[in-house]
Amino acid sequence: MPTLILVRHGQSQWNLENRFTGWWDVDVTEKGVAEARAAGQLLKDKGVLPTRAFTSVQKRAIKTLHLALEECGRLWIPETKDWRLNERHYGGLTGLNKAETAEKHGEEQVKVWRRSFDVPPPPLEAGSEFDLAGDPRYAGIDVPDTESLKLTIERVLPYWEAEILPELAKGETVIISAHGNSLRALVKHLSNIPDDEITELEIPTGQPIVYEFDSTLNPAPYYYLKDA
Amino acid sequence: MPTLILVRHGQSQWNLENRFTGWWDVDVTEKGVAEARAAGQLLKDKGVLPTRAFTSVQKRAIKTLHLALEECGRLWIPETKDWRLNERHYGGLTGLNKAETAEKHGEEQVKVWRRSFDVPPPPLEAGSEFDLAGDPRYAGIDVPDTESLKLTIERVLPYWEAEILPELAKGETVIISAHGNSLRALVKHLSNIPDDEITELEIPTGQPIVYEFDSTLNPAPYYYLKDA
Repeated sequence: MPTLILVRHGQSQWNLENRFTGWWDVDVTEKGVAEARAAGQLLKDKGVLPTRAFTSVQKRAIKTLHLALEECGRLWIPETKDWRLNERHYGGLTGLNKAETAEKHGEEQVKVWRRSFDVPPPPLEAGSEFDLAGDPRYAGIDVPDTESLKLTIERVLPYWEAEILPELAKGETVIISAHGNSLRALVKHLSNIPDDEITELEIPTGQPIVYEFDSTLNPAPYYYLKDA
Repeated sequence: MPTLILVRHGQSQWNLENRFTGWWDVDVTEKGVAEARAAGQLLKDKGVLPTRAFTSVQKRAIKTLHLALEECGRLWIPETKDWRLNERHYGGLTGLNKAETAEKHGEEQVKVWRRSFDVPPPPLEAGSEFDLAGDPRYAGIDVPDTESLKLTIERVLPYWEAEILPELAKGETVIISAHGNSLRALVKHLSNIPDDEITELEIPTGQPIVYEFDSTLNPAPYYYLKDA
């Protein structure tokens, strides 16, 4: 039966420093590497072995995928990288430490930006050190200057429908290595979670989440693989 | 202009132990990891940055690709893995130490198997510990039980024509991370090397080889990137 494995990338340097990251291409830490390997070991131990992989174009998700696949002996499966699985773009908050941001804008405002469904943070200023205008991986793509969770969902779901769902329909065991908010987008869709609840759902790093689908591609409720 | 980068995987455990490897999925050594990273650093230093990647389904080539891409900041480029870029299948020699093989079969016979263009080694016996019959990565594929260099070329070149050449035609900078004999197949084709000379051509591990193509897809003679 079609199976979907969701993995949020292992700890990144800016997770550790508590900075807003978004589309900035931050590496995983040593702890993040260990989390990714442990995720792969768990896939192997539980015998949930991916046959098809998707990830973002951000190195913390790509490296997490590669480390997990190596641990479960599946480095050889086809993999596709796409910007539509990227993290939510945090706009002008990119690079800011969360405590400093709260001091500057107030706790309440930061909570709104982090937790509201459809209010994007202020846009990233052109020419900012975090401006991705010249980055060749986004050549030809209309890079957003900020995103709400709603906007994130609006680019994740069409990609899901067009590229990932057809693989599940073939009976593949698909792994998606991605980010807190691109994975929230999928979980919201698959588990029918309302707008005001999804922003509270925390997806832990390096913990494989599994959806099993029936033959009509209806998913059963998800579970954490470690609990299986 | 279209550019092709060929990289033979970094040292593997069986390179180190001087054993015939072929399709057996041996890992890279620490030295091999360092060679792969150095290859990526060289790509970065020389500004020859891949936009499209191909590799085999063998972990020593896949890991070499990933390490090199990480070093040159290109983990995000599309990559395709295909068994037709695998190493030559060494048949019944798989797993044997080269000195032991020479003792058993004679130096001359081993030289024929290693260096002749069209004489394959004896086939791998079904049920051997190196039999790949149950390996899911080869499901649906008619896995050979031995290959000469000629037979290797006969599966590499159709793949080159069908999948890789069209990417070069688009102007991409293609990197292929593969194996001594699958790369020999390409070099023979691109540099018009006769049958009796190609078997003597040694492709060093972790050393990027570059072909630049003109607009009609004719390649100039190759060079080692380190000499550029």
